[in-house]
Amino acid sequence: MSSHPPLGVVAVGNALVDVLAQTSEEFIAEQHAAHGMEKGAMTLIDEARAVDLYGQMPAGVESSGGSAANTMAGFASFGGHGAFIGKVADDELGRIFQHDLRSLGLKFDTQPLIMGAKTGRCLILVTPDAQRTMNTFLGASVELSPLDIDEALITQARVTYLEGYLFDRDQAKQAFIMAAEAAHAAGHRVALTLSDPFCVDRHRSDFLRLVENHVDILFANEEEIKSLFMQDNFEDAASAVSSHVEIAALTRSEKGAVIVNGEQKHHIIPPAPVTQVIDTTGAGDQFAAGFLYGFTEGMDIETCGKLGTLAAAEVISHMGPRPGCSYADLLKKAA
Amino acid sequence: MSSHPPLGVVAVGNALVDVLAQTSEEFIAEQHAAHGMEKGAMTLIDEARAVDLYGQMPAGVESSGGSAANTMAGFASFGGHGAFIGKVADDELGRIFQHDLRSLGLKFDTQPLIMGAKTGRCLILVTPDAQRTMNTFLGASVELSPLDIDEALITQARVTYLEGYLFDRDQAKQAFIMAAEAAHAAGHRVALTLSDPFCVDRHRSDFLRLVENHVDILFANEEEIKSLFMQDNFEDAASAVSSHVEIAALTRSEKGAVIVNGEQKHHIIPPAPVTQVIDTTGAGDQFAAGFLYGFTEGMDIETCGKLGTLAAAEVISHMGPRPGCSYADLLKKAA
Repeated sequence: MSSHPPLGVVAVGNALVDVLAQTSEEFIAEQHAAHGMEKGAMTLIDEARAVDLYGQMPAGVESSGGSAANTMAGFASFGGHGAFIGKVADDELGRIFQHDLRSLGLKFDTQPLIMGAKTGRCLILVTPDAQRTMNTFLGASVELSPLDIDEALITQARVTYLEGYLFDRDQAKQAFIMAAEAAHAAGHRVALTLSDPFCVDRHRSDFLRLVENHVDILFANEEEIKSLFMQDNFEDAASAVSSHVEIAALTRSEKGAVIVNGEQKHHIIPPAPVTQVIDTTGAGDQFAAGFLYGFTEGMDIETCGKLGTLAAAEVISHMGPRPGCSYADLLKKAA
Repeated sequence: MSSHPPLGVVAVGNALVDVLAQTSEEFIAEQHAAHGMEKGAMTLIDEARAVDLYGQMPAGVESSGGSAANTMAGFASFGGHGAFIGKVADDELGRIFQHDLRSLGLKFDTQPLIMGAKTGRCLILVTPDAQRTMNTFLGASVELSPLDIDEALITQARVTYLEGYLFDRDQAKQAFIMAAEAAHAAGHRVALTLSDPFCVDRHRSDFLRLVENHVDILFANEEEIKSLFMQDNFEDAASAVSSHVEIAALTRSEKGAVIVNGEQKHHIIPPAPVTQVIDTTGAGDQFAAGFLYGFTEGMDIETCGKLGTLAAAEVISHMGPRPGCSYADLLKKAA
């Protein structure tokens, strides 16, 4: 048990490259009719469908994505030392993903997949109302297995952060449990983000078991926490979670966030000011980045929450789910 | 000789993917000291240097680029029917480049390079003053050869548009001559963009020979035309060009453009209004797009120039060298 772990956070998540294109409402309607694409939701697609959809969609812009990887980009931007575990293929997009994390000073040494699927990608269609419809081909990400869980790395981090989206694969669930056990054996914390209400729907009992047995810090938005506890209103869901985890950081969009820390302590965090909301993607990812930075630096819970809303406010003021400026600078200005 | 060619423009150019990253002045200064990188200029680099520089530069955003390909994206956005000839490799970036052109309705059937170099890329470093420093690894683009010049395609287009940057390779020069001869044999026009004053410096006598013998419409900015005719002031360069080509479309940044049409006719085109200049990259490419759209639709020279400044004003008002909205819609609003 190390008392001064050299890393703040090691994240386990999907390694994805985003392909972002502007599209019309009609295009989404056609894709809905033909393929059941749900506007505003995240749909998992296979490679054949990814090739087909890419062939039909407009010209795009490529950038590294993945929910937990976005969080680590924000965490590094605050000045945090972290690492990422996730599976790319040995191809151009994989090298782009790898470059973009490493260039932020993050450790990322998961062995790329040599044979098999390509690097995963998320085809994101932005309609004129600024809503995003995501179509994810997980690709090589699917192949993340317990063999990729670097236990030595995990024992070096104060928090091991798990991405809920990975729950869509069985061997990734095993990898999660293994990572959580390694973290706890070293006396460190395990955090989980639920990622998506539909993902929670698909795996509710498994998520509940994981939260109950392995998770210290839970990140969720309003829809996700309601879905997990099958509650119709937020307050009931927030009460339900309090006995299961040490900390639940619950984000509520324009209402800010509520941090539940033990059964009786609800900290209400107001949203940080935003001049103009351009693109809400990444708000949850960056809230987690700010919160985890504060937490691993030993700040109090309210300050952790405020760092979360600060980062979330920044990321929604521009296109893309990763920081548009240095969060360390933002923090200095705010202080 | 077809009197109604089905295509407006076929462009012959570099097939490049841009990798755009924000960087500090210090980074450029270090790269200048160690590798002679010139701030604001375009430097050609080899694959080893591209890998080295990419490894050092910050996280980036990838999107399809290439000067003539950017022009074709603008031409298609106006509603023009066009085609592109250029060489990608059989890799992910090549498929991205191909997808992005085809998704705009452009024909692009040049055979990808199977063995050898990767798809070319341009590593673009943006400093806080909004200046761009470009580092181009031409990759597979270098392999464009006379064999890739689809003469049947060229005979279908009113204008064959050649990208000056391709002059950095000998076999591409041969491909240029071949394309120009095929266009003229079919009774159509040949256009050339000079691309870069340094490129003109490297190949002045070849450029002069090409312009003299094969070019009907010449696109150049102030620096390029001064470099080509080794003149210190713009007016002298504009006078010098008039006897060499049918039309010279000369762009002058915030001063708009001058169209030289025969020895005595200088049309002065004022710049179109811009609320805020965000990124000047692509201004020349999109001026050419507007001008060529007007020209191939049979509009008068002044209107062609106005369409050029309209497109240039749009592209400099956002990041990236390709249209941020439909130019056909822009044209409707302006009318």
